[in-house]
Amino acid sequence: MAFKDLKINGRRLQSTLEEMARIGATPGGGVQRLTLSAEDQEARGLFVNWLKALKLEVTIDEMGNIFGSRPGKLNGLPPVMSGSHLDSQPKGGKFDGILGVMGTLEVLRTLDENNIATQRPITIVDWTSEEGFRFAPAMLGSGVWTGALDRDWVYNRTDIRGRRFENELNRIGYKGAAPCKKWPVRCYYEYHIEQGPILEKEAKIIGAPKGIVGLYWYDIYLKGEANQAGPTPMEGRHDALSAAAEMILKVNELPNRMGGNLVATVGEIQNHPNSRNIIPDNVHFTVDIRSWDDEHAINAWDLVRKDFENIAARRGCPIKIEETWRVEHSPFDETRVQLIMDCAENLGYSCLHMVSGAGHDASYMNQACPTAMIFVPSIGGRSHVEVENTRWEDCEAGANVLLHAMLRSANEE
Amino acid sequence: MAFKDLKINGRRLQSTLEEMARIGATPGGGVQRLTLSAEDQEARGLFVNWLKALKLEVTIDEMGNIFGSRPGKLNGLPPVMSGSHLDSQPKGGKFDGILGVMGTLEVLRTLDENNIATQRPITIVDWTSEEGFRFAPAMLGSGVWTGALDRDWVYNRTDIRGRRFENELNRIGYKGAAPCKKWPVRCYYEYHIEQGPILEKEAKIIGAPKGIVGLYWYDIYLKGEANQAGPTPMEGRHDALSAAAEMILKVNELPNRMGGNLVATVGEIQNHPNSRNIIPDNVHFTVDIRSWDDEHAINAWDLVRKDFENIAARRGCPIKIEETWRVEHSPFDETRVQLIMDCAENLGYSCLHMVSGAGHDASYMNQACPTAMIFVPSIGGRSHVEVENTRWEDCEAGANVLLHAMLRSANEE
Repeated sequence: MAFKDLKINGRRLQSTLEEMARIGATPGGGVQRLTLSAEDQEARGLFVNWLKALKLEVTIDEMGNIFGSRPGKLNGLPPVMSGSHLDSQPKGGKFDGILGVMGTLEVLRTLDENNIATQRPITIVDWTSEEGFRFAPAMLGSGVWTGALDRDWVYNRTDIRGRRFENELNRIGYKGAAPCKKWPVRCYYEYHIEQGPILEKEAKIIGAPKGIVGLYWYDIYLKGEANQAGPTPMEGRHDALSAAAEMILKVNELPNRMGGNLVATVGEIQNHPNSRNIIPDNVHFTVDIRSWDDEHAINAWDLVRKDFENIAARRGCPIKIEETWRVEHSPFDETRVQLIMDCAENLGYSCLHMVSGAGHDASYMNQACPTAMIFVPSIGGRSHVEVENTRWEDCEAGANVLLHAMLRSANEE
Repeated sequence: MAFKDLKINGRRLQSTLEEMARIGATPGGGVQRLTLSAEDQEARGLFVNWLKALKLEVTIDEMGNIFGSRPGKLNGLPPVMSGSHLDSQPKGGKFDGILGVMGTLEVLRTLDENNIATQRPITIVDWTSEEGFRFAPAMLGSGVWTGALDRDWVYNRTDIRGRRFENELNRIGYKGAAPCKKWPVRCYYEYHIEQGPILEKEAKIIGAPKGIVGLYWYDIYLKGEANQAGPTPMEGRHDALSAAAEMILKVNELPNRMGGNLVATVGEIQNHPNSRNIIPDNVHFTVDIRSWDDEHAINAWDLVRKDFENIAARRGCPIKIEETWRVEHSPFDETRVQLIMDCAENLGYSCLHMVSGAGHDASYMNQACPTAMIFVPSIGGRSHVEVENTRWEDCEAGANVLLHAMLRSANEE
């Protein structure tokens, strides 16, 4: 069989995904497999067994990242790496992250059963703690590996119940001996569901993101004056929640005012004392602005920040603004992105050159080596929810694109 | 000394209030004495000791309401009753409720030291669980006593940790033997801080509320669609928090649109999943509308309800609306209110005929017997907060008005 006709086994990929999805399965059809939980431990065990069945050399590093190495003909050359993560959001879906790890596994199984030896070695990876729900921020495993985050800082991160990252890593038995430190890699691929509705809307099967949008996070704190709702006239109130409501609407209207090309979201709010008959005196809320155009995002923030200050002054609610996180847009390696599009075209799949609105382990890997991603459609654009879904034939298509991108890259000199 | 020159002892009232304020004192200068807590138990013990020192007949009923009876010359006649409550909000103030009980105690002490016998008996009362914070709703003791609430229903109310009202009442030793059931009362007075800024603004010392405003409570539930904030375009979002923000602003603007004569407040909001990078899919918030004019309040609600439905439809966020509580405005007995104003005038205190924006035990008592209240200014209009404050001379003035209103009423045939 010519390489160009090589295909992965779509049924096997489906059954692998389904078997993995039983670990932490939720009644609503999703999975809950929080980082370093018993479910994460079980998923890791299954994954390692699958790697060993392929006779891969398994390495677990001091961050719990799991690597499986398949030798090449020239083992002195840096490997092609591909993977994603096995942890999930609470009541999350069974594709986010997992598809990228199981898709790579399916590529390796396909190479094995076809007795294909590549020039370069290939490394499959499951990165620890991508979701950032239990231990913030997100992408801890790849962050430490690439040197963007400090290992001991991550070790001391705690979850909401005060449990340390390092202790939990030890508890589930996945604090390995290998140093968590980058080594030479030829290129990194990450196969992932889109997590948005664009491929579905454009009726494309494969997405080839040119990179990841810039991300701007802010935390807003408003002070009002708590008083009994009944006897306090409207005049002279300092109602922190009404002030926040006005600001939240400004955030929601911001992309339209800026002529598009960005998204802006308030996802989180805390209100104090949060009693139905007391005027709120303390409100905290978050702002998330993302755009491929960093200057555009910063201009948008400058505009809405002025709105915030005016609203706060008019309502007599002092405001405190913190810039929490700022990541500039990150373009992937153009050659690798082009390779993804070429592979899709050769396989007869429609393909969209797009952007990724979400961060991924590929964001950090992009700082360490040439990186690209492969997206497949999310039904209804849904993700981070139990109903997150992707058609099996699309899962198969994406894995075929990954197979050919990896094959070509692993045979590069 | 002629009755008309009789005055309470302002210094003694102050020291009594200060001694009571040490129980559950907070670092910020307020008190935290939640219903049926150890602090409530200690406050009750001190109060009962003070009643016994006056040789009053102490009765504790099956709701934990504490009554102290001072005989009159004609004990067959229904007594004059006066009091309020000793429980507080979390991090509340040292005047709300307590002033009405300690003020009545000071009146009784003044009668005793002046050897004044009244025609009718006088009853001082501490009502159980007025604040409604630990066990909702508010005013449980007076509610059961007047027959508005069912005793066993209240017994089964639970706090946030699932502890039953009746068990907690037993635990602190204040489930008495006397039935909690109304008996004939000549009239009921409740002396209280205003909890609003109007007396201060109008520079009046005494407030004589003509009654309590109507109160309309609603619970609003919005459904959106949770999705990752980054990859989800603004178009097609169903953001339940943005919808709620638009509605909260409508509530805030409502009194102005209605030409005044009402207040409207959103005090409470819950947002789900409340994660900074996920579009919110479930929001609950409350609406509190109050007006002396019930029809006006209902018209206001009809207006804002239509806004809510339009906003929900436009944003594709299905809405569920529950009417949680509705209490029509409650006019006090005109003769008793006039008596309060006459007493204030005779004592040389400026007096404002006003309304009470908050509910009180007097709301229920007003259904059982002729009722009136006495307000004194809240500094800055603040209440339900640690900085809640009233000038000592104003506390004294209000207690003098109470003294003369009670004296006159207790000598009525």
